[in-house]
Amino acid sequence: MSLSVVGSIAFDSVRTPFGERERMLGGSAVHFALAASFFTDVHMVGPVGDDFSDEHTELLGSRGIDTADIERVAGGKTFFWQGHYEHDLNVAHTDDTQLGVFADFEPKLCEASRQASTLFLGNIQPDLQREVRSQCTGARFAALDSMNLWIETARDSLVAAIEGVDCVLLNDAEIRMLTNEPNLARAAKALMAMGPSVVVAKRGEYGAALFDSRGFFALPGMPLEEVRDPTGAGDSFAGGFLGYLDGMDSEPGADDLRKAMAYGTVLASFNVEEFGTERVSVLERGEIDARLGELRSMTHLRE
Amino acid sequence: MSLSVVGSIAFDSVRTPFGERERMLGGSAVHFALAASFFTDVHMVGPVGDDFSDEHTELLGSRGIDTADIERVAGGKTFFWQGHYEHDLNVAHTDDTQLGVFADFEPKLCEASRQASTLFLGNIQPDLQREVRSQCTGARFAALDSMNLWIETARDSLVAAIEGVDCVLLNDAEIRMLTNEPNLARAAKALMAMGPSVVVAKRGEYGAALFDSRGFFALPGMPLEEVRDPTGAGDSFAGGFLGYLDGMDSEPGADDLRKAMAYGTVLASFNVEEFGTERVSVLERGEIDARLGELRSMTHLRE
Repeated sequence: MSLSVVGSIAFDSVRTPFGERERMLGGSAVHFALAASFFTDVHMVGPVGDDFSDEHTELLGSRGIDTADIERVAGGKTFFWQGHYEHDLNVAHTDDTQLGVFADFEPKLCEASRQASTLFLGNIQPDLQREVRSQCTGARFAALDSMNLWIETARDSLVAAIEGVDCVLLNDAEIRMLTNEPNLARAAKALMAMGPSVVVAKRGEYGAALFDSRGFFALPGMPLEEVRDPTGAGDSFAGGFLGYLDGMDSEPGADDLRKAMAYGTVLASFNVEEFGTERVSVLERGEIDARLGELRSMTHLRE
Repeated sequence: MSLSVVGSIAFDSVRTPFGERERMLGGSAVHFALAASFFTDVHMVGPVGDDFSDEHTELLGSRGIDTADIERVAGGKTFFWQGHYEHDLNVAHTDDTQLGVFADFEPKLCEASRQASTLFLGNIQPDLQREVRSQCTGARFAALDSMNLWIETARDSLVAAIEGVDCVLLNDAEIRMLTNEPNLARAAKALMAMGPSVVVAKRGEYGAALFDSRGFFALPGMPLEEVRDPTGAGDSFAGGFLGYLDGMDSEPGADDLRKAMAYGTVLASFNVEEFGTERVSVLERGEIDARLGELRSMTHLRE
């Protein structure tokens, strides 16, 4: 079993009430891959520029992540995002975005990436997501993330991309916006009617909810007293969620999807404790399972 | 065992995207009492005007609610609230408030109300909450609700009221505002340091979270496809929560508090399905327990 992810590989400059960092490693594919790497083999797909150093590749390699499909563009600049958060850490304010090498990105997956059993299409332009989906023919389970920008500017392509996946992960507001339906339960049904069998509604500090043909499941976020930087929480969630599912021997059942939601919640909770990848890059598997136990105990309702 | 509640008894005119109603029975004490009446004996305390009819008293009486301490003020007008909701049903927009008989309310509890084992101080001016608390000497468990208005205009009195109760139920934003602490887990601790041993954070459609010395527990809201009017959801939650706790023979333990949270969630979910008291006033106990089973199944995470 293995998992391919395409998404941004970025340098992020982030300021929160708890500190700031300049040009640290980030991007949806990076946060996703680090989280998923605790559960399965991960192939990362995406472009970087000359400014992407061996140190960054080594960090990914140290978690066993295959970086063969990280395309280094000579003379190019790595995707750059600058943003900040006020005391309400649920809202990211974007101060600058420089597409760099992403502007001309044409995905070309190597054979190992094409044959992955699970595929995650991180939040990038939906035409690119569809191109990667068409190359990754071996995936038994494909999922995508997106954002309000693509709902507004590339809706038709996004809907076509959604038709090609089994699972969509979006935040509440995006699910409502995409389906033009203010009631989340109905909106999730409308989204499933487009093709996917599973919809995950990401809810920031309130956790995440799962809708599928069998019904509804929800988990709260971990009640952390230290949250320094929420950047990448959604991608860390997706990495824990899909990483765990990819590690299953057989087609995941209802209990497996719930446990995957729990691993997603746990990985997201570690991600936000420090800036960028600082916490997850030094995380150990034992910490993940200990926190999963805490989450189970925090949500257990006795008969 | 019995439960006393003081709070507004009101006429509400409400408009939502799904319809509107003029001067229907409402108010925090009404929504609370109806929900709690499924679990224990309830004494309602509060003033009404000449415009409060026998029909309203009979509705409350039909659920076994003791209305002896509903004080009818000759020549007075019942508290009136007018508001509306946009498609985001989490945000109430107030269009008119008329205090009426509440402006000169001086609580005088009869002996049965004073001796109740549980007390709920609904969202009214904190001086009034303190007055009722001082009269209700028999309560083994007292709880209060409040709102941003009192945090802004009567903070010292509210803090004094909080010092006198075992449990505070507020929404997330109010807990943060009251403690001036943006992190909810820390804010809940700060609130407990003021006196209460239990803090319930109400989170609208995201459900509710419980903080106490033993830790954290959270439940999502029920994923309803039909939500017509969220007015009174928080009070219905409090009624299910405290009503269930009052029905316990002994001091409630951790599992009891969790089950109480579940009953609160269930009562709130019925409340919002129709306008005002329309749904809860015709609710049957069997429906409550059936939905509790659904909620348990929706949140169950297998080992």
